[in-house]
Amino acid sequence: MIRGKMLDKPGTSCPLRRNKFPYLIGCFMHIYRSHTCGALRASDAGSQTRLSGWIHRKRDHGGLLFIDLRDHYGLTQLVFDPSSPGFAKVERLRAESVIRVDGKVVARDGATINANLPTGEVEVYVAEVEVLSEAAELPLPVFGEPDYPEEIRLKNRFLDLRRETLHKNIVLRSRVIHSIRQRMVDQGFLEYQTPILTASSPEGARDFLVPSRLHAGKFYALPQAPQQFKQLLMVSGFDRYFQIAPCFRDEDLRADRSLEFYQLDVEMSFVTQEDVFAAIEPLMHGLFTEFGEGKRVSSYPFVRIPYRESIAKYGSDKPDLRNPIEMQDVSETFRGGGFGLFARILENSANAVWGIPAPKGGSRAFCDRMNSWAQGEGQPGLGYIFWSEDQGAWGGPIAKNLGQDATNALMAQLGLGQGDSAFFVAGDPKVFYKFAGSARTKVGTDLGLVDEDQFKFCWIVDFPMFEFNDEEKKVDFSHNPFSMPQGEMEALQTKDPLDILAYQYDIVCNGYELCSGAIRNHKQDIMLKAFEIAGYDEAFVESQFGGMLNAFKYGAPPHGGLAPGIDRIVMLLAGQQAIREVIAFPLNQQGQDVMMSAPSDVLDKQLKELHIRTQMPIKVS
Amino acid sequence: MIRGKMLDKPGTSCPLRRNKFPYLIGCFMHIYRSHTCGALRASDAGSQTRLSGWIHRKRDHGGLLFIDLRDHYGLTQLVFDPSSPGFAKVERLRAESVIRVDGKVVARDGATINANLPTGEVEVYVAEVEVLSEAAELPLPVFGEPDYPEEIRLKNRFLDLRRETLHKNIVLRSRVIHSIRQRMVDQGFLEYQTPILTASSPEGARDFLVPSRLHAGKFYALPQAPQQFKQLLMVSGFDRYFQIAPCFRDEDLRADRSLEFYQLDVEMSFVTQEDVFAAIEPLMHGLFTEFGEGKRVSSYPFVRIPYRESIAKYGSDKPDLRNPIEMQDVSETFRGGGFGLFARILENSANAVWGIPAPKGGSRAFCDRMNSWAQGEGQPGLGYIFWSEDQGAWGGPIAKNLGQDATNALMAQLGLGQGDSAFFVAGDPKVFYKFAGSARTKVGTDLGLVDEDQFKFCWIVDFPMFEFNDEEKKVDFSHNPFSMPQGEMEALQTKDPLDILAYQYDIVCNGYELCSGAIRNHKQDIMLKAFEIAGYDEAFVESQFGGMLNAFKYGAPPHGGLAPGIDRIVMLLAGQQAIREVIAFPLNQQGQDVMMSAPSDVLDKQLKELHIRTQMPIKVS
Repeated sequence: MIRGKMLDKPGTSCPLRRNKFPYLIGCFMHIYRSHTCGALRASDAGSQTRLSGWIHRKRDHGGLLFIDLRDHYGLTQLVFDPSSPGFAKVERLRAESVIRVDGKVVARDGATINANLPTGEVEVYVAEVEVLSEAAELPLPVFGEPDYPEEIRLKNRFLDLRRETLHKNIVLRSRVIHSIRQRMVDQGFLEYQTPILTASSPEGARDFLVPSRLHAGKFYALPQAPQQFKQLLMVSGFDRYFQIAPCFRDEDLRADRSLEFYQLDVEMSFVTQEDVFAAIEPLMHGLFTEFGEGKRVSSYPFVRIPYRESIAKYGSDKPDLRNPIEMQDVSETFRGGGFGLFARILENSANAVWGIPAPKGGSRAFCDRMNSWAQGEGQPGLGYIFWSEDQGAWGGPIAKNLGQDATNALMAQLGLGQGDSAFFVAGDPKVFYKFAGSARTKVGTDLGLVDEDQFKFCWIVDFPMFEFNDEEKKVDFSHNPFSMPQGEMEALQTKDPLDILAYQYDIVCNGYELCSGAIRNHKQDIMLKAFEIAGYDEAFVESQFGGMLNAFKYGAPPHGGLAPGIDRIVMLLAGQQAIREVIAFPLNQQGQDVMMSAPSDVLDKQLKELHIRTQMPIKVS
Repeated sequence: MIRGKMLDKPGTSCPLRRNKFPYLIGCFMHIYRSHTCGALRASDAGSQTRLSGWIHRKRDHGGLLFIDLRDHYGLTQLVFDPSSPGFAKVERLRAESVIRVDGKVVARDGATINANLPTGEVEVYVAEVEVLSEAAELPLPVFGEPDYPEEIRLKNRFLDLRRETLHKNIVLRSRVIHSIRQRMVDQGFLEYQTPILTASSPEGARDFLVPSRLHAGKFYALPQAPQQFKQLLMVSGFDRYFQIAPCFRDEDLRADRSLEFYQLDVEMSFVTQEDVFAAIEPLMHGLFTEFGEGKRVSSYPFVRIPYRESIAKYGSDKPDLRNPIEMQDVSETFRGGGFGLFARILENSANAVWGIPAPKGGSRAFCDRMNSWAQGEGQPGLGYIFWSEDQGAWGGPIAKNLGQDATNALMAQLGLGQGDSAFFVAGDPKVFYKFAGSARTKVGTDLGLVDEDQFKFCWIVDFPMFEFNDEEKKVDFSHNPFSMPQGEMEALQTKDPLDILAYQYDIVCNGYELCSGAIRNHKQDIMLKAFEIAGYDEAFVESQFGGMLNAFKYGAPPHGGLAPGIDRIVMLLAGQQAIREVIAFPLNQQGQDVMMSAPSDVLDKQLKELHIRTQMPIKVS
């Protein structure tokens, strides 16, 4: 039944019977391989083998020809004697040609053993070669994976993907996703698919549209996220949902953003915020431990940081907690004090002064460097005090003006001492907090305070439900309009909207936001009231979210969830900065697949069937 | 940290400590539930419980109010005493309202134990009720799941999905897909995602198009299948790929076809056809055994049936092997014989007579019914012979004309005897084989020969590479142009194209085609030659499949795969006839999501950004 040739007569001793490779059945030799290129070990020495793979590298050495044969599983060194019939066949072949070889496994001499290679204790003396596919001259080398322009890499992605790093990243991605799935199922979640051809939704980003052939003039949209469907699944009585869900947003591309991306979409019924955390923390901890290559991973429960505290301590709602620096409000020390600039700024009650402690940063040189950096960031400068190691005295113009007592008070409040410094940012925190956060990052990084050998997680909680939209001069939702306000209807009716918090949360790891989530507003009346506060009437809500709103009329459970970004998790685990390094076939920065030519022209007939015409932008000459 | 109230003082004996429900931490009672509605057992009698769920059914009985409370996990019977504070609250509630109750678990009396319910040994005497969400009057009842028009079901899918059968189907689907994934990974396959925003492809069905905003006048397409990408993954050196892949075809809808569907997409490198079979047979056998509820499943290797043999024996390339009937060519017995009609038909050498044996069908009444059925199918009639049980003699006009010897010969060839009958179809098999196949099915079904308590698998192999296209009067590909022709280049150069077979195969189960697959043509020259035979020149191939063709220039491994349809597998396992019964949120027969209103009108602004205009069909008044 196997198309192949027999090496031995059935019933006789079979040299390959030991072999566990699934393609080898009984004593028939498979036509392509008895082993993968990662399989042979010292214990195989003396046996016959058949391998197939790509010519990774060719070397001439002492008259012999050495080839590293590569497949998905590894590399095996082949040796061709000039007198062997295969020598001439392979000598002329280019790298990346595909061959099948038969030969004998031979133990390498002690000196030639390659300890870096699992197959490094053996090599194969090749008796016979078949050329399965000859490679033309390569537009992109595979061996050694030298840097190459991204467009060439994407145009020849099938070669790029053979390169060790990218190949490993894509395998890692696959293993990570499978592990996530297994962990979710082990926790009693079930994966359900939600539609990809769905309705255009007004929240968030721009939709991709799909013209309908059967319904002229109407359009499907690709989902930005399965938000409404996962909530409908809860209303349908499914209790613990997840999905590795493809999502689509027609936004301009960035290194960490793609038009099409995947999220671990999760929703649970009859839960509080803490239940969601309790479900996701073991997943994240386990996943990052499994794939983190020995890096430390936060134990759970992860620290919870209220949004406002995160802004105040870290100047960000995505704090990198590997950086131990915590900022403090030091306004009281400066108020009415000797440093006139800050004292005047503090006369406006909306303003504040924040201090950024810089342990071991107590030199004028470092402080000056920080000051220059701040100017490069468009700031007038960065105030500082340093308590130098050698003199033990403070330095910098702020200290001089502020006086000894206040300087000592700052040192005490910020937990600093001799050899340390502190930087100060003054003004309206709403305006300066991001810069303060950057300064914190810069101080931590430059002083080597960031221990990178870890994955440090936290939850950011208690996001404000509403914010003041300065452009439109009105109160608006600050994040997800479907979140449940803390205090529910009573809060909406009695509190200043800008003081209302939501059951909304993010997971942050090493300064990256991995996901947002929320306990949802499952009550129609509270939802309508929340939209009213944000200036949207019932008719608007009905027109935009009618499907979901209607469903809430017929018995909706309390529910909540979140949606960590898969691509970003894999990026973190692979130590990559660009999402394209963890996607097999990504679009380029212009949203094009330059290998398959997408997007592309289509036939007029196709457009006609879809009841659309193109309308090209008018060229201005 | 848990928002909830304490039932007991910490440190005192906790009645719920036994409880393993993950939401319950220490001795704090979760605000929604201590158990799911499927959890309580006789051993819980006497303990306190908190449950949340939907009011499935309400009954008044002896002054008491009984409620079946339902969640994803099951049903629990609640009992409300008229004197209890909750009585009045729930009495007025409609079915499908969501409530939270606190109460005491009580063992039921022997007579009232419900053995059909896992929780049937207990009920909960409710002390306190909280209404979490009140249901309005239902457009679709959940309890008892009475038949309802499909449009109402789809419009209120969130209610439809609460119904037991559909809820179970969707859970089954989830478990089936997870099991497939686990089985594939256990066999060394890795799942890789291929793009959903991709290039329009000319093969097969109609593409869904997605207008590009960044590239005016150009379009992405949604993948009909990841065919080219999975082959590119092989060329990229990934060895064993799978994906539960969403696929999209803009075709008219049928009960078993959706615009958007999922397939288990599989591809393997360095394999023969038998290797693909060996990988997929244990998967199918294991999967159908796991979820087949005790039905027998074909052991593997599954029987392999060449395409032409399948047509000849079963009148179909999707034979239902649960039906034991095999047709035979009985032309020789009729050639030049006494039954003039068939003898004349056989004068044309393209024609034949096929016999359909009908064991235990030996009555004039049955044969007449079959004849009438054939006329209803648009046939002139259906010739037959029967060997009746009582008289032992043959009957029917064919036998009368054919004579005793020939009739005996037919009986012997078809393996029949007293009490059996046989039906005959004559003419050009290319024309009549489908009807013959239907007659075989009809005979098997009507005579009760089909043992439905099993899943019977086979492979259909050796599909012809080319067929004659009668419309265009030319040779064309009969299935997949990317399949490797058996005999490779030599066959293409030397054989009649219509005699060339392909390494192409289907899996059929119980008469359903579960998938197609093939060993691919990985050699550029053979591919160009195959296209040339089908009348396509190199420029055409380059323009349509340039991405893949180009990749084959740089070292392509031999590879092959297949793609079983997930929805169809789940349909078979769920015993459903319509794909919409195994999809959570399907489109209706007109391709609409009537719950979320898709497809829908979009804003002019959106179209303008996408550089398109709609062009409505001209109405003829």
